[in-house]
Amino acid sequence: MADTKIRLFVDQPLGAGQVIALNEGQANYLFAVMRLGVGAAIRVFNGRDGEWRAEVAEAGKRKGLLMCDVQTAPLQMPPDLWLLFAPIKKARTDFIVEKATELGAARVIPVQTRFTNADRIRIDKLRAHAVEAAEQCGGTYVPQVDEVVPLEKLLANWPAERRILWCNEHLAGVAEALPDGGEVGPWAILIGPEGGFSEAEQARLAAMPQVVQASLGPRILRADTAAVAALTLWQAQLGDWR
Amino acid sequence: MADTKIRLFVDQPLGAGQVIALNEGQANYLFAVMRLGVGAAIRVFNGRDGEWRAEVAEAGKRKGLLMCDVQTAPLQMPPDLWLLFAPIKKARTDFIVEKATELGAARVIPVQTRFTNADRIRIDKLRAHAVEAAEQCGGTYVPQVDEVVPLEKLLANWPAERRILWCNEHLAGVAEALPDGGEVGPWAILIGPEGGFSEAEQARLAAMPQVVQASLGPRILRADTAAVAALTLWQAQLGDWR
Repeated sequence: MADTKIRLFVDQPLGAGQVIALNEGQANYLFAVMRLGVGAAIRVFNGRDGEWRAEVAEAGKRKGLLMCDVQTAPLQMPPDLWLLFAPIKKARTDFIVEKATELGAARVIPVQTRFTNADRIRIDKLRAHAVEAAEQCGGTYVPQVDEVVPLEKLLANWPAERRILWCNEHLAGVAEALPDGGEVGPWAILIGPEGGFSEAEQARLAAMPQVVQASLGPRILRADTAAVAALTLWQAQLGDWR
Repeated sequence: MADTKIRLFVDQPLGAGQVIALNEGQANYLFAVMRLGVGAAIRVFNGRDGEWRAEVAEAGKRKGLLMCDVQTAPLQMPPDLWLLFAPIKKARTDFIVEKATELGAARVIPVQTRFTNADRIRIDKLRAHAVEAAEQCGGTYVPQVDEVVPLEKLLANWPAERRILWCNEHLAGVAEALPDGGEVGPWAILIGPEGGFSEAEQARLAAMPQVVQASLGPRILRADTAAVAALTLWQAQLGDWR
């Protein structure tokens, strides 16, 4: 049987001869939805051990076993880049997590700002979106998705060496603002809520030595567009798109 | 009464003292949804005459009149940049048009490729999305949205001077591929379908002198992500984000 193009994230150790026990959701997807049978091969990854070829060894209604065969790709870590964003409407929040995974962020942190309405954030759903995006985009890594944290608290304990790209809609010229070449080090991108940051938040950010202010053009971008644009510019100039 | 933050696209001439007749949808939005009354002021634009302040002169159930007052912003045209994309699932196609408007494309052309499924594209809906995005992002211009056109036909009549940024997932380094500085001239960005271009399409594109091939990093991007990323890189390097 020819190998399928299916990629599955499994939170278990991977290695030659390693047996992988499938949970109910995975078994349902592989055997009921995709109609795979014993002997079919898929690709699996766990975010740590790269990508492996695995064959179906047992296929049940609510369970199943895969047997790991050979490694098909090494682990490819994204740059040490965090995305901080203020959650917005559900579909657009899902979208931001999906795009952060595709574009290569290492960690995604939803932040509670003065003007954020983050009542209904379901972190488990966001994590599932990150997994699905990694399965789709061929990545071998799934970004960590944190619980919502107050921006104030996050900034109070901010690491001295981690720079922050703050996309401030009142400035012009992101390309100029980013350092060019050299050792990159740890970074974060900060995207504000649709209502913008409060004056106190703006003053706090502007006073931090780690902050690099940048703008994303002459039009006002939605938060989800701004997240994708900022990740793109960072990756092209400082990240693994270079 | 303080001015509202409402921005409305009206397809009518704008100027001092100009009267604007509202259609049923616009009257419903302003008077029933937003509950504006006579004397309330909004911003209007038509894609040609910049942005104007206009006051409600008459408010009816299915109609109404606005009176143009003063210009609040000049017309700001985006760069001469077209976005060509192969339509995908509905929500993601809507999203591409929204993002192209926000990021500043002048024209959006859905293309039928060998592996495109564009049966259900509703161009009127896509145009409404472009209008809504322009209203939201503070733009004074709405990109033209064309009917779906076969890629082959489009390329057969392609203008000699309009360059094409082709986002080819098998290459690396978009930043190197784009010319740096100087006169920019007319451009287009071409985003392929989820299934990729056919071999014949790839050969056709590779042979065109106008084509600049570029890649968008080591992960495989969905078509909607690729569209936003390519627009961002182009705008930052050659467009009005510089």
